[in-house]
Amino acid sequence: MRVETLVIVGVGLLGGSIALAARRRGAAGRVVGVDGSRAALEHARGKLLVDDVACLSDAAAAADFVVVCTPVDCIASHILAAAPACRPRCLITDVGSTKAGIVRAVEANLPPGVAYVGSHPLAGSEKHGPQHADAALFERRQVLVTPTPRTDPASLERVSAFWHALGATVRVMDPEGHDRAMALTSHLPHVAASALSGVLPPELSGLTATGFRDTTRLAASNPALWSAILQANRAAVVEALDRYAEQLADFRAALEANDRAALEALLAQGKQVKDSLPKG
Amino acid sequence: MRVETLVIVGVGLLGGSIALAARRRGAAGRVVGVDGSRAALEHARGKLLVDDVACLSDAAAAADFVVVCTPVDCIASHILAAAPACRPRCLITDVGSTKAGIVRAVEANLPPGVAYVGSHPLAGSEKHGPQHADAALFERRQVLVTPTPRTDPASLERVSAFWHALGATVRVMDPEGHDRAMALTSHLPHVAASALSGVLPPELSGLTATGFRDTTRLAASNPALWSAILQANRAAVVEALDRYAEQLADFRAALEANDRAALEALLAQGKQVKDSLPKG
Repeated sequence: MRVETLVIVGVGLLGGSIALAARRRGAAGRVVGVDGSRAALEHARGKLLVDDVACLSDAAAAADFVVVCTPVDCIASHILAAAPACRPRCLITDVGSTKAGIVRAVEANLPPGVAYVGSHPLAGSEKHGPQHADAALFERRQVLVTPTPRTDPASLERVSAFWHALGATVRVMDPEGHDRAMALTSHLPHVAASALSGVLPPELSGLTATGFRDTTRLAASNPALWSAILQANRAAVVEALDRYAEQLADFRAALEANDRAALEALLAQGKQVKDSLPKG
Repeated sequence: MRVETLVIVGVGLLGGSIALAARRRGAAGRVVGVDGSRAALEHARGKLLVDDVACLSDAAAAADFVVVCTPVDCIASHILAAAPACRPRCLITDVGSTKAGIVRAVEANLPPGVAYVGSHPLAGSEKHGPQHADAALFERRQVLVTPTPRTDPASLERVSAFWHALGATVRVMDPEGHDRAMALTSHLPHVAASALSGVLPPELSGLTATGFRDTTRLAASNPALWSAILQANRAAVVEALDRYAEQLADFRAALEANDRAALEALLAQGKQVKDSLPKG
């Protein structure tokens, strides 16, 4: 798989890493960066993440493959802004952490001849900005690709081959199933980490150790990016929060009752799931 | 600071690490291990964590310094079992994650001539057993030392010097203040991580990535050890859980109301605390 002209819209941590990985692995002949931030573009060109920079319509007109890496609440409009300028056989994907709303908005409005398939790489960091771009970010990571009944098989194959070329494995899911799963595997952990950090009185920060630090790592994420993600999946996140609140209430009840067996059973349930996770 | 005969009661991850660190750093002339598990003792002697093994009373009779590293619900009784055999000027400490109950039980029953000061090293791991012992475990870590009005200054100084000799820094707190602080910095994170792991449906485990993995690291901890810790500090942990539940309810309300500003403010609150933590 080799793309002639790869366009990255949004050259932050993910977009910059895709650009860098595609160049290093020879997955693209030429990489063009598009970003609303002049500083991000200058960094991307200065550090050779991209060959060139351009405005969205010029870049789209030259593209064979477009990856939109902007915040989730901007992705659909960036795709729909790029699409009319694209040549036939151009393929567009994105890296949004939610999929159903984006896929719905895009499919209803895409001009003929341009293909779109949603993607979500399970890779990232609480850091952001192209200065943290990492060519190895996708190696041995999963990318969830979310076709619909309207997706043509060749486009699905092409987008999968692109992610394979960056070192990732690909898993196909429907957009709604994706969002329900991510509510529990990713969005709830973000809220849990943030709330845990938020309730720590500042005068106790010097008494934290590695346990608090790891459990709250995600709390360092960008609040604007994450409020958009949570909003884009809010029904499923509310459901996940309710399930979490129930489990915490069970812990509270076991403590109130001073019930060792109940506490141990709850902790053992968490440990069993934890111990069964794939090792990373 | 050099102890002639150091006795470690409970040669697990922490006890084994103290033994190893004391030997490597010349902080003890001789290290004797005591443990109810023959396998742990054989491992400790085989891997040269300790010079010798003995039963509790024989070890105590030879000791200049005793560190009790058994589960929190056994610590007070192990201290009180060792104390009558100890020689005058022997100092006993422990590494329990809770302090108020242990200190109260010990101080009320300690024979004259034997000194006790509580300790809690902010170091450890979700792993356990002497096979994970690490001589560097205490380097640049904090040890919280919890004297009371009955503690003589020389004992406080001696126990502090011991931890310094293993590479740690020492912070003095009263036992009750220690427990209230740990409810938020350590015990709540354990419950939050365990509950988060516990609500993940097993069929989604293959869709987790680094975010879920780090947020739930503590869920791998030993359920028996941790149910004892949570029970030993249950009033403060219930209070911390209530505070956490309120913060999570605020997130839920902001999502229900689709209120971007409220969500972003909550996430920013978590980020501010997180960003202000000492770097580890």
